Amino acid sequence: MSMKPKTIHDIETPAVLIDIDRVKDNIARARAHADRIGVKLRPHIKTHKLPEFAKLQVEAGAVGITCQKIGEAEVMADAGLTDIFLPYNIIGATKLARLKVLHDRITLSVTVDSADTISGLAGAFTDPAHPLKVLVECDTGGGRCGVQSAEDAVALAKLIAASQGLTFGGLMTFPPTGKPKDAETWLANARSALVGAGLPCETVSSGGTPDMWQKPAEGVITEYRPGTYIYFDRYQVAKDAATPEHCALTVLATVVSHPTPTRAILDSGSKSLSSDTLGMADYGEIVGVPGARVTGLSEEHGIVTLSDGAVLVIGDRVRVLPDHACVVTNLFDEVYLVSGETVVDILPVAARGRLT
Amino acid sequence: MSMKPKTIHDIETPAVLIDIDRVKDNIARARAHADRIGVKLRPHIKTHKLPEFAKLQVEAGAVGITCQKIGEAEVMADAGLTDIFLPYNIIGATKLARLKVLHDRITLSVTVDSADTISGLAGAFTDPAHPLKVLVECDTGGGRCGVQSAEDAVALAKLIAASQGLTFGGLMTFPPTGKPKDAETWLANARSALVGAGLPCETVSSGGTPDMWQKPAEGVITEYRPGTYIYFDRYQVAKDAATPEHCALTVLATVVSHPTPTRAILDSGSKSLSSDTLGMADYGEIVGVPGARVTGLSEEHGIVTLSDGAVLVIGDRVRVLPDHACVVTNLFDEVYLVSGETVVDILPVAARGRLT
Repeated sequence: MSMKPKTIHDIETPAVLIDIDRVKDNIARARAHADRIGVKLRPHIKTHKLPEFAKLQVEAGAVGITCQKIGEAEVMADAGLTDIFLPYNIIGATKLARLKVLHDRITLSVTVDSADTISGLAGAFTDPAHPLKVLVECDTGGGRCGVQSAEDAVALAKLIAASQGLTFGGLMTFPPTGKPKDAETWLANARSALVGAGLPCETVSSGGTPDMWQKPAEGVITEYRPGTYIYFDRYQVAKDAATPEHCALTVLATVVSHPTPTRAILDSGSKSLSSDTLGMADYGEIVGVPGARVTGLSEEHGIVTLSDGAVLVIGDRVRVLPDHACVVTNLFDEVYLVSGETVVDILPVAARGRLT
Repeated sequence: MSMKPKTIHDIETPAVLIDIDRVKDNIARARAHADRIGVKLRPHIKTHKLPEFAKLQVEAGAVGITCQKIGEAEVMADAGLTDIFLPYNIIGATKLARLKVLHDRITLSVTVDSADTISGLAGAFTDPAHPLKVLVECDTGGGRCGVQSAEDAVALAKLIAASQGLTFGGLMTFPPTGKPKDAETWLANARSALVGAGLPCETVSSGGTPDMWQKPAEGVITEYRPGTYIYFDRYQVAKDAATPEHCALTVLATVVSHPTPTRAILDSGSKSLSSDTLGMADYGEIVGVPGARVTGLSEEHGIVTLSDGAVLVIGDRVRVLPDHACVVTNLFDEVYLVSGETVVDILPVAARGRLT
């Protein structure tokens, strides 16, 4: 761990700055919105990977948290989080053994989208007195995992219900971005089919920060798994889910070169900003310097194109708003919590790189 | 650190496998090629970030190593590497202080492309008995850092030579990929201008794995800084720098879902394969399964599109050849060295995430 500097001017670059006031504000706004539209919140920790922030989210009314990998859930359980949803197909003997250990420690639920995954879970979890809750993942247009039809959802729910160590918990989807209505319609049909088959659907879980803000109050979804809303980023601003003033994560960088009048170079490349643009033009923009956009990256260099009279000087320390906050978090061992320009704390990114 | 499994079948996924036989073969072939074309090798450690492999490279005749950040050089110096080139503009009091400590421990050289950077170095390094070697970085078409003309190179070389604690070491470039001739011409002109100004040019350093294999024996370049040649990757194969049989790094992954006949899902997403395609179509291909390409990534899921009769089954463990090996290395805390299917060792990626 680094020694805590007093202000952001004392931090070596590149570094991740998290505006703690904005974080708290974003958490509170999401809670108010969730209350307004009548859904439970189960935030995805992928964005921050910090047990400290997972606890803030739970203290602000979240019913639990979402992790994507067992390794992340282990870190969060170690830190005292007690209710974790793993919307992932858990495959293989070693992972099933780790899942069982977790299930004995905390309230755990998972998803499946195939009979193969159910078969593995049913072999590992056999105690009817302490069953594992299993939701069925549905492909509502997101094009990732998930069953392709309501009939397939019912078939898997029946398999789960017939396994003595498993209990059917409902439906889950990774929704198609920008088409929240598609997911609602798909899930409503599947829930009707399940109820018709005598399988009540306790939870209907959806995700995605941008669409949450457009979601109407009525609908089939009972639980939301937003991640990025705690920090927001350039992509979320482009999707109208936030304004630049809501964005809590920036990368502090130094201008190390200025080879031409319109080209400046930062000490932050794809190893700190990541190459993940989520389809956006450019890799980020410099806060407070309109016309300074990060137009190219190599691993340790960020190429800034200057336009509209933007000025940078070698030695300038700037804050970059990246396209995708979640992947930036995963590249740093620690982040600096700041309030204004004061450094409040340094936190190790405890769940960083937990890939298995 | 993980316990060492016996074979790759016992490794939890996702994981990075490094074929140690191919690594040794790639190092030997590069050395033979460098000898043939008469250049010194100073490999870039960014690809492997492992002191153990840096030592292998030096034992195989490399004159030293190249690091991009001071933090990487500190790790390598701690491990016993004694000659390190940092082709980077070092800016700011804290970094200059760290650079001075390094310079007292090992043989160190750096680059500059501005009077500002020279001014900082000249303030920190003042001992004529132990000067810091400084090369001038030239933009020969790569479009990153570097002076824009031979005249500017001469002007900076004069500033370096006039600083009592610095010594002028020559020229360095990050060359335009696919245009090695452009870099040669640019550098030859600049060297002539320097010699004309009474500034002999000891070293002319270029980089980039793909072009090294096309480089003719005659030319101005005295030293090469290839990185990726130790592992190669899908991009290098596309650039004809290697065949698939030379590629030493693969990501071991498990098929966790198979939602449609042509779509399978891996437990490896952008957090293990990275979003860095270097402009390639797709994010990787599955070794030994022609027609299985990674066509989409989210953070923890890899979307495989199956064509030409390719078959994958849930639970299959596959090896993915990624587009860009260097960025994959940076995402893992440890890598598995394998010989065939036997696990030979597990190495911590000691210089991973050393961003400052």
